[in-house]
Amino acid sequence: DFLNALQEIVPAFGASTDDLERCRLNGMVDCGNRHKHIYERAMLLVEQVKVSRGSPLVTCLLEGPSGSGKTALAATVGIDSDFPYVKIVSAETMIGLHESTKCAQIVKVFEDAYKSPLSIIILDDIERLLEYIAIGPRFSNLISQTLLVLLKRLPPKGKKLLVIGTTSEVSFLDSIGVCDAFSVAYNVPKLKKDDAEQVLRQLNVFAEDDIQAAAEALDEMPIKKLYMLIAMASRGVGGGASDEAIYSERQKIMISHFYDCLQDVVGY
Amino acid sequence: DFLNALQEIVPAFGASTDDLERCRLNGMVDCGNRHKHIYERAMLLVEQVKVSRGSPLVTCLLEGPSGSGKTALAATVGIDSDFPYVKIVSAETMIGLHESTKCAQIVKVFEDAYKSPLSIIILDDIERLLEYIAIGPRFSNLISQTLLVLLKRLPPKGKKLLVIGTTSEVSFLDSIGVCDAFSVAYNVPKLKKDDAEQVLRQLNVFAEDDIQAAAEALDEMPIKKLYMLIAMASRGVGGGASDEAIYSERQKIMISHFYDCLQDVVGY
Amino acid sequence: DFLNALQEIVPAFGASTDDLERCRLNGMVDCGNRHKHIYERAMLLVEQVKVSRGSPLVTCLLEGPSGSGKTALAATVGIDSDFPYVKIVSAETMIGLHESTKCAQIVKVFEDAYKSPLSIIILDDIERLLEYIAIGPRFSNLISQTLLVLLKRLPPKGKKLLVIGTTSEVSFLDSIGVCDAFSVAYNVPKLKKDDAEQVLRQLNVFAEDDIQAAAEALDEMPIKKLYMLIAMASRGVGGGASDEAIYSERQKIMISHFYDCLQDVVGY
Amino acid sequence: DFLNALQEIVPAFGASTDDLERCRLNGMVDCGNRHKHIYERAMLLVEQVKVSRGSPLVTCLLEGPSGSGKTALAATVGIDSDFPYVKIVSAETMIGLHESTKCAQIVKVFEDAYKSPLSIIILDDIERLLEYIAIGPRFSNLISQTLLVLLKRLPPKGKKLLVIGTTSEVSFLDSIGVCDAFSVAYNVPKLKKDDAEQVLRQLNVFAEDDIQAAAEALDEMPIKKLYMLIAMASRGVGGGASDEAIYSERQKIMISHFYDCLQDVVGY
Amino acid sequence: DFLNALQEIVPAFGASTDDLERCRLNGMVDCGNRHKHIYERAMLLVEQVKVSRGSPLVTCLLEGPSGSGKTALAATVGIDSDFPYVKIVSAETMIGLHESTKCAQIVKVFEDAYKSPLSIIILDDIERLLEYIAIGPRFSNLISQTLLVLLKRLPPKGKKLLVIGTTSEVSFLDSIGVCDAFSVAYNVPKLKKDDAEQVLRQLNVFAEDDIQAAAEALDEMPIKKLYMLIAMASRGVGGGASDEAIYSERQKIMISHFYDCLQDVVGY
Amino acid sequence: DFLNALQEIVPAFGASTDDLERCRLNGMVDCGNRHKHIYERAMLLVEQVKVSRGSPLVTCLLEGPSGSGKTALAATVGIDSDFPYVKIVSAETMIGLHESTKCAQIVKVFEDAYKSPLSIIILDDIERLLEYIAIGPRFSNLISQTLLVLLKRLPPKGKKLLVIGTTSEVSFLDSIGVCDAFSVAYNVPKLKKDDAEQVLRQLNVFAEDDIQAAAEALDEMPIKKLYMLIAMASRGVGGGASDEAIYSERQKIMISHFYDCLQDVVGY
Ligand SMILES: Nc1ncnc2c1ncn2[C@@H]1O[C@H](COP(=O)(O)OP(=O)(O)OP(=O)(O)O)[C@@H](O)[C@H]1O
Ligand SMILES: Nc1ncnc2c1ncn2[C@@H]1O[C@H](COP(=O)(O)OP(=O)(O)OP(=O)(O)O)[C@@H](O)[C@H]1O
Ligand SMILES: Nc1ncnc2c1ncn2[C@@H]1O[C@H](COP(=O)(O)OP(=O)(O)OP(=O)(O)O)[C@@H](O)[C@H]1O
Ligand SMILES: Nc1ncnc2c1ncn2[C@@H]1O[C@H](COP(=O)(O)OP(=O)(O)OP(=O)(O)O)[C@@H](O)[C@H]1O
Ligand SMILES: Nc1ncnc2c1ncn2[C@@H]1O[C@H](COP(=O)(O)OP(=O)(O)OP(=O)(O)O)[C@@H](O)[C@H]1O
Ligand SMILES: Nc1ncnc2c1ncn2[C@@H]1O[C@H](COP(=O)(O)OP(=O)(O)OP(=O)(O)O)[C@@H](O)[C@H]1O
Ligand SMILES: [Mg+2]
Ligand SMILES: [Mg+2]
Ligand SMILES: [Mg+2]
Ligand SMILES: [Mg+2]
Ligand SMILES: [Mg+2]
Ligand SMILES: [Mg+2]
Repeated sequence: DFLNALQEIVPAFGASTDDLERCRLNGMVDCGNRHKHIYERAMLLVEQVKVSRGSPLVTCLLEGPSGSGKTALAATVGIDSDFPYVKIVSAETMIGLHESTKCAQIVKVFEDAYKSPLSIIILDDIERLLEYIAIGPRFSNLISQTLLVLLKRLPPKGKKLLVIGTTSEVSFLDSIGVCDAFSVAYNVPKLKKDDAEQVLRQLNVFAEDDIQAAAEALDEMPIKKLYMLIAMASRGVGGGASDEAIYSERQKIMISHFYDCLQDVVGY
Repeated sequence: DFLNALQEIVPAFGASTDDLERCRLNGMVDCGNRHKHIYERAMLLVEQVKVSRGSPLVTCLLEGPSGSGKTALAATVGIDSDFPYVKIVSAETMIGLHESTKCAQIVKVFEDAYKSPLSIIILDDIERLLEYIAIGPRFSNLISQTLLVLLKRLPPKGKKLLVIGTTSEVSFLDSIGVCDAFSVAYNVPKLKKDDAEQVLRQLNVFAEDDIQAAAEALDEMPIKKLYMLIAMASRGVGGGASDEAIYSERQKIMISHFYDCLQDVVGY
Repeated sequence: DFLNALQEIVPAFGASTDDLERCRLNGMVDCGNRHKHIYERAMLLVEQVKVSRGSPLVTCLLEGPSGSGKTALAATVGIDSDFPYVKIVSAETMIGLHESTKCAQIVKVFEDAYKSPLSIIILDDIERLLEYIAIGPRFSNLISQTLLVLLKRLPPKGKKLLVIGTTSEVSFLDSIGVCDAFSVAYNVPKLKKDDAEQVLRQLNVFAEDDIQAAAEALDEMPIKKLYMLIAMASRGVGGGASDEAIYSERQKIMISHFYDCLQDVVGY
Repeated sequence: DFLNALQEIVPAFGASTDDLERCRLNGMVDCGNRHKHIYERAMLLVEQVKVSRGSPLVTCLLEGPSGSGKTALAATVGIDSDFPYVKIVSAETMIGLHESTKCAQIVKVFEDAYKSPLSIIILDDIERLLEYIAIGPRFSNLISQTLLVLLKRLPPKGKKLLVIGTTSEVSFLDSIGVCDAFSVAYNVPKLKKDDAEQVLRQLNVFAEDDIQAAAEALDEMPIKKLYMLIAMASRGVGGGASDEAIYSERQKIMISHFYDCLQDVVGY
Repeated sequence: DFLNALQEIVPAFGASTDDLERCRLNGMVDCGNRHKHIYERAMLLVEQVKVSRGSPLVTCLLEGPSGSGKTALAATVGIDSDFPYVKIVSAETMIGLHESTKCAQIVKVFEDAYKSPLSIIILDDIERLLEYIAIGPRFSNLISQTLLVLLKRLPPKGKKLLVIGTTSEVSFLDSIGVCDAFSVAYNVPKLKKDDAEQVLRQLNVFAEDDIQAAAEALDEMPIKKLYMLIAMASRGVGGGASDEAIYSERQKIMISHFYDCLQDVVGY
Repeated sequence: DFLNALQEIVPAFGASTDDLERCRLNGMVDCGNRHKHIYERAMLLVEQVKVSRGSPLVTCLLEGPSGSGKTALAATVGIDSDFPYVKIVSAETMIGLHESTKCAQIVKVFEDAYKSPLSIIILDDIERLLEYIAIGPRFSNLISQTLLVLLKRLPPKGKKLLVIGTTSEVSFLDSIGVCDAFSVAYNVPKLKKDDAEQVLRQLNVFAEDDIQAAAEALDEMPIKKLYMLIAMASRGVGGGASDEAIYSERQKIMISHFYDCLQDVVGY
């Protein structure tokens, strides 16, 4: 299944997937059915691209709230495909560049992909690639146009390409026609109470008696913020408890301290 | 008739129509009466341009929802005319260029056309040529002005030109006066249930019993998305069924899997 | 009278009026009283400029719906005046130029005119010279300012200048004060049913019995679109009927086919 | 009185006032009390600047509808003052220049004025200097700021300066604070029926019986348009009547033809 | 007291305060209590800066209607402080400069001030420094940011700085946060009837019987416009009465003429 | 506790923390519980960054009204951490620079931080770094995008980074998604009456009988303005009382004079 697949395949990868691995710093735990479903459908698209004759270009959008696990999921699909060319396009490597330079770099990634028989390109945080800001709104039309064309341009004969985009601003992307430019789209959700409980059990950082209460408080929490919160709550319990101490079960998080930290987290 | 015409003429073309051929990657099937009607009227315009003395410039707009078959139709008219100069102007070959460079390239195509006694220019996805984005809206006024002038400028004495434009943003084009700049316009629609059924029969990818149900679900589907959907639904039926397997009738698409895929498709 | 005047004078002109002649590709037929009236008043202005001492600069705007015959009318006045300097300023020869370059070219035409004792400058499609687009609206303020000044600047002592502008966006021009900058203005209308009938009779392309019905359908049609429509309707009547065949009365347009074509024409 | 003053002084001027003279191409007739009053007050300001110690800078705005005689009035004050430096700043000599170049030229005129003990600067059609256009509105902030500062900056010790501005867009100037930057302001009106009658009598172009009727029709007409209208109406009366013929009383304007022409004039 | 203070100190200054002196061309008369109060408080800030250890930077805004005497007041404080560095920053010396050049000049003044143990910088007419125009509104964000930072940046250790800003657009400054950037703010008002009377008595330009009536008419008049008005009213009384004649009491202003002039003044 | 911690650690720092020390010119007094709480939580984050494995990047926003003590607080945390790299990024050192230069400088600070195992970066007055102005609003999208990416980009393996931002425009930051980019956020408030009383006692500038009344008047006053006010009120009490005199208890502030000064302070 989903998680097993991940854990089996990871060791098979070498240095070149470092970029992808950094996208899932906290590893991959079982986050509930929706996450699993999306992973499976995405892997089917990987199959389709590989085998189908009539669809040399497939494009798939992962959208959902900030921190819900979109990038980690896309990276995992990239790692788990056995495609020779897997590349992540991220604003992190293009800070401060002029929009035309960014444009050129993005085009370059596509041109490189066109040279490989099977390729995956991850367009991570598309709103950030587009320099989107809600006020105005402002964004780069140059880069928008570039993506709109690239998302529809067929690779040369005999080449196949899967593009996976991620975004937490789906309604913006929709309003500029970028959603329409994707063939399929999946919503990656926050954790429900039950998903949170499952995750907490896997992390094993609360005393058994506290898990239920903690999970209740974590309803509608994105997986990424959950990790930050756990890290915060691990501090201040009798001084210098380290992550290791917590995760290795030698010490558990005090639920009251956990509640305190919860209040500091932005958006809660 | 329409489809026959296509199939007869295609072999007569060599490498130079490669660009046009790539525009109809999935070939041309019978999509219903409206598509056929538009093809016939467009071919009459080809005739008019060739013969008439008083109208050396005829301009025709194909507008309709995304994926309804506009580009394939325009390309087919270009291929089926026996004009010595047929050229497609597309944003795909002008990614990231400055608007003035795009402008110059477009003008160049017209200047080249003016040298041929009979020419067809396809302005594909005019909204993309104009760098249109709905928010704002934003678009290149420079290119808009260029098209507005080129669509009305007469070719030199003795030269004849047919311009075919395509767009899925007809109301935008209308609001900037580009529709008015065309002599005639045709709406290329999505498939109706009956059209879809006809197409499915031609493709022969469903068991006879499923065709009606599938066609029902495909009401108001653009022909292009139909092809993508068939390709997706062909995956996941007992592992690695390839397109060939499906199209060659060795395997049929499972209708339940088809319904699942339908939900992932953007806009449905 | 008006049409006679045209036909008499035309032969008197040589190559240098080629540009003006191209503006009335389909010749000049009698379009009804309003067109005639405007022609006569414009010719009076020609007289005024020539003779009057106190008004060395007269400016006249021809405004009306797209295709109503403004440019052809202005060109005709230019041709029929016996002024040594008659020049048309059109966006067609300035495609893609920067607004300051356009500006310089326009100024150049005026400077040249100032050297001739009697000059006519036709500013054709002023909204296009101004790079006007309805959304925004956008337009070149640089060129607007230039025209606003040029339309009021007196020629040097002893020189006389008549400026004729044409536009189909009179309300825009009004909103930026360009209308006010003209001394006089005339509205060039579409054809009324009776005008259309008169034109059809002159063209002689319908069987006598069909003329009335056709004219009825052509109520509120601009003269320019009427010509396009006739050219379209001339196709598809028993294969390859050429314009000549139609105009030479050997063949007449089938009224039913005419109705079909009417529906394809943009804006009807 | 006012008109006499003008006529006496004019001959005293040489070539250098050519620019100013061109501003009153049709001479100066008696236009009614308001025009006279403004002239007198403006001449008092001329006096004040010359004599007063505490106000080395006086600024005066003439505002009113298009064609009401503002520029001619300002030019007349300039001519009638006996100031060694009188300069008109007009958009006519700055067509197509970049706003910073215009700025520099305007500053230059002020710097030159600062060198003369007594100077008058006429800022003609300020809205045009500012590249104002009603849509937006758009205008040059650079030039606006320049004028706002120049209108308040004191000349060097011992130098005196009178600035006269003209505009037909007073509400715009008011909204950007330029009106406030002037010390005094006068509204130059259109002609009232009685003023028009007086002017017509002076021009002597109508038969005595027609004057009253004509004046009635000219109520609220700006003096400048009145001249254009008279010139138009002088044509078409039995062929080639020249201005001279009309003004020299050999021929009179036919009142019916006059009414016709009135309808063609923009804004009536 | 206030006025005495002014008159005593002025002679103590040499050429270097010329710029400041030009700011109070009409000298300083007693304008009423509010003006006096502001002067005193500002002088206390001068003291505070000199003596206090904890507030090396004090910033003070003088705001009020156009012509109310803000600049003259600020200049007077600058003159009356015995600070070694007193500098006025005004748009008058930066006409037409690019905003970044203006920025650099402003920064330069601050850097220079930082070198002196005690400094005063007068930011005169801040809205003009910011190139503010009400329509839009438009203004230079670059200069705004510069002022916002400079108004809060501490001088180097051991240096003290008093910044005095003046503006007649306080609500604009407030809306961009510039008011908040000042420590203290004072409203400099127009003259009330009583203040006006007091001023008129000091100027001694009316006959005793007219003073009350004139003062009544001057209620809510800014002191600066009062001076302009007196200068205007001094003209036209029997020809060439000079300022001197009026101020030296040889001649008095006729009250009726004074009323006439009052109507011409902008804003009354 | 909080204040003690501060006072103990300060001496341990050398020249390199000068920048940070200048941020708390008036030292650190006990401002009430909320300030203390924030300090403690921020120090816990310092701990977390140092010890935790799973959160190499922690980001913390201090937001609150102008002058509430945010910068002093952030500087104090920076000083009290024993991190080898502590850097403040402030608009003060980037006046007048182009946004791309600012961008580069900010990136440089992060790149430097990435080289140290433990780093703190203080982004002071983020709205000022972003060149934010409320009207429009206007701001630098380039810098916004840069911060949005830097606030999420993980440091290289083995490096840890704490980012502390300060702002008094939290709702703006929220509207452009910058708040969301922080892990935790704290509101730094103005002084309540009780806090003010506590501060006044520590400063010891009022007579015992006046403290309560003064504190009452200082309810909702930011700590920074309180210091300015005290400095102002210390002037004008019998001439030249210096800060020292006041703070050294030789002289007390007169409560009536204190009330007067209170009215001059902007925003009260
Ligand atoms: N099943 C899972 N799916 C996704 N992420 C997981 C899963 N299990 C654990 N994680 C961890 O959760 C975090 C998800 O963060 P990620 O950056 O993918 O979220 P995101 O939705 O891309 O956030 P943002 O909206 O900020 O881009 C990663 O650190 C990842 O290691
Ligand atoms: N009769 C037909 N007419 C048009 N296209 C057809 C027809 N039969 C099959 N097709 C296939 O359907 C697809 C139509 O896609 P096409 O790109 O022309 O649509 P479009 O309307 O131009 O889309 P877009 O709005 O994205 O530009 C092509 O792959 C073409 O091969
Ligand atoms: N009496 C007439 N007046 C004007 N045009 C006529 C007349 N008779 C025939 N025509 C023909 O009608 C056409 C008028 O087109 P024209 O380009 O002048 O229209 P327009 O109003 O300038 O159009 P647009 O709004 O597109 O600029 C010309 O081809 C001209 O030859
Ligand atoms: N008493 C008068 N005052 C002003 N103009 C007069 C007078 N008598 C005759 N004229 C004539 O009337 C015309 C006035 O035109 P002028 O250009 O001054 O108007 P304007 O208000 O400046 O117009 P615009 O608004 O277009 O700038 C001139 O040709 C001038 O010779
Ligand atoms: N007590 C006074 N205070 C201020 N100005 C005075 C006083 N007495 C006389 N004046 C004179 O009044 C005038 C005030 O003009 P000033 O330029 O200072 O006004 P302002 O408010 O700065 O105007 P603006 O809003 O145009 O900048 C000066 O000429 C000054 O000499
Ligand atoms: N406990 C305290 N916390 C913060 N500041 C204190 C404290 N005690 C005294 N102060 C003093 O109060 C002042 C706080 O000013 P600071 O610049 O930190 O405010 P700020 O909120 O950053 O203001 P701004 O919004 O203008 O950036 C400093 O001078 C500091 O020395
Ligand atoms: Mg992500
Ligand atoms: Mg297409
Ligand atoms: Mg035309
Ligand atoms: Mg004028
Ligand atoms: Mg001032
Ligand atoms: Mg701060």
